[in-house]
Amino acid sequence: MPRYRAIIAYDGTDFYGWQVQPGKRTVQGELEKAVNQMAKNPEIPIRVQGSGRTDAGVHALGQVVHFDLPYQIPANGVRKGLATMLPFDIGIEQVDIVADDFHAQYSAHTKTYRYQLSNREFRAPFRRNYTGYWPRRLDYDKMAQAIPDYLGEHDWISFAASGFQAKTTVRTVTDVKISQEPATQEITFEFTGTGFLYNQIRIMVGVLLEIGMGTRPVDDIPRLLAAKDRQQARLTAPASGLYLKSVDY
Amino acid sequence: MPRYRAIIAYDGTDFYGWQVQPGKRTVQGELEKAVNQMAKNPEIPIRVQGSGRTDAGVHALGQVVHFDLPYQIPANGVRKGLATMLPFDIGIEQVDIVADDFHAQYSAHTKTYRYQLSNREFRAPFRRNYTGYWPRRLDYDKMAQAIPDYLGEHDWISFAASGFQAKTTVRTVTDVKISQEPATQEITFEFTGTGFLYNQIRIMVGVLLEIGMGTRPVDDIPRLLAAKDRQQARLTAPASGLYLKSVDY
Repeated sequence: MPRYRAIIAYDGTDFYGWQVQPGKRTVQGELEKAVNQMAKNPEIPIRVQGSGRTDAGVHALGQVVHFDLPYQIPANGVRKGLATMLPFDIGIEQVDIVADDFHAQYSAHTKTYRYQLSNREFRAPFRRNYTGYWPRRLDYDKMAQAIPDYLGEHDWISFAASGFQAKTTVRTVTDVKISQEPATQEITFEFTGTGFLYNQIRIMVGVLLEIGMGTRPVDDIPRLLAAKDRQQARLTAPASGLYLKSVDY
Repeated sequence: MPRYRAIIAYDGTDFYGWQVQPGKRTVQGELEKAVNQMAKNPEIPIRVQGSGRTDAGVHALGQVVHFDLPYQIPANGVRKGLATMLPFDIGIEQVDIVADDFHAQYSAHTKTYRYQLSNREFRAPFRRNYTGYWPRRLDYDKMAQAIPDYLGEHDWISFAASGFQAKTTVRTVTDVKISQEPATQEITFEFTGTGFLYNQIRIMVGVLLEIGMGTRPVDDIPRLLAAKDRQQARLTAPASGLYLKSVDY
């Protein structure tokens, strides 16, 4: 049973997120349908394992998945076959044959998420599904000054959505970036880390927006991390601006 | 009754085109709903006149419209009011108070259309609604060599969709442009003219695609124009790549 790794891009707008759910259109569901169709619907259905879930409306530029096929097909043939069977809002960027012990979730070292913000007074109609819309004036320099405070190993419980369950809430952020594009009035945030809690990125962006608006002090992130209190950071940036950019192994 | 001119951008994906149709979601229908709501639903409904129609799936970066309000509101107040009432796939770029004899359709001198082509083997999921997808290899230099043959005053009957009715099929193309972006494998065509027949731009692009693929000679456009025969140019590029870019007065 050869194992395949695929890099997938998807427009999350019309999906109920990544994970298979009965009666709902999900990315994993569409991928499994295409893979099984390509493999002529084997008796034991083939499962597609992703590096992790994404929520409804969240996009991916480089989601990584693995699956096993019952017989060997050249990687490029798998790419072409899937491309013809998948809906147009899922793209297959790359397919490789990998070692049997490669696991899209457990072998991952770090993930990079991008958050794309539209900071305009009026909504940009072509960007409505591809950015978070934030009409209030933001002090970019304050956000740029604060964002490195996220770097390092921390207990991220203050940035976890309520209802979240995990064995440990300690994760390491290894890289952060911020940039702006005056022509489009968009701001791009990027976060690389060993893992992120449910909604963590959107709450991290929410805190930066409060810092940019001046409703939270520019040096508040270390205090928030130390507080270990889910109630203090409650602004969750919209899902439409979030992209799983890449997964590193 | 003060007259207002507005510049409108819209993502045509989820509209049945520009023109009001009973029971269908159209751009004109949504605009008229918002304008009448803003004017507190006057007894005689306010009509919104566009510079011309766009088909289902066709976009606009700078559609121009006019409408009359029963009382004077500052232009910026009209912009803000409409922005809060319109759906997110229509944007109001600019609003001005204009002379009573300004007419969005009849006062227009020229229009510029853009056609955005995705020339990749595999579909780009985020561009599926915003480009025409063309996987076959195209010779860019041949298309760039041929496109100036569209310039000038011509009878465009060879480029009219069948079923089209118009008093005259003579129009003048005053400017053409072509450019490519290797990073995204996209090609941009632009056409400026005094008017275009139904589907004319998409058929003009179709002829350029045939020239780029080598299935039509590079010098075939003058012959096609002279032939005055609707049957010779039949490839119509997909609606999703077409944008009404601007209207000049």
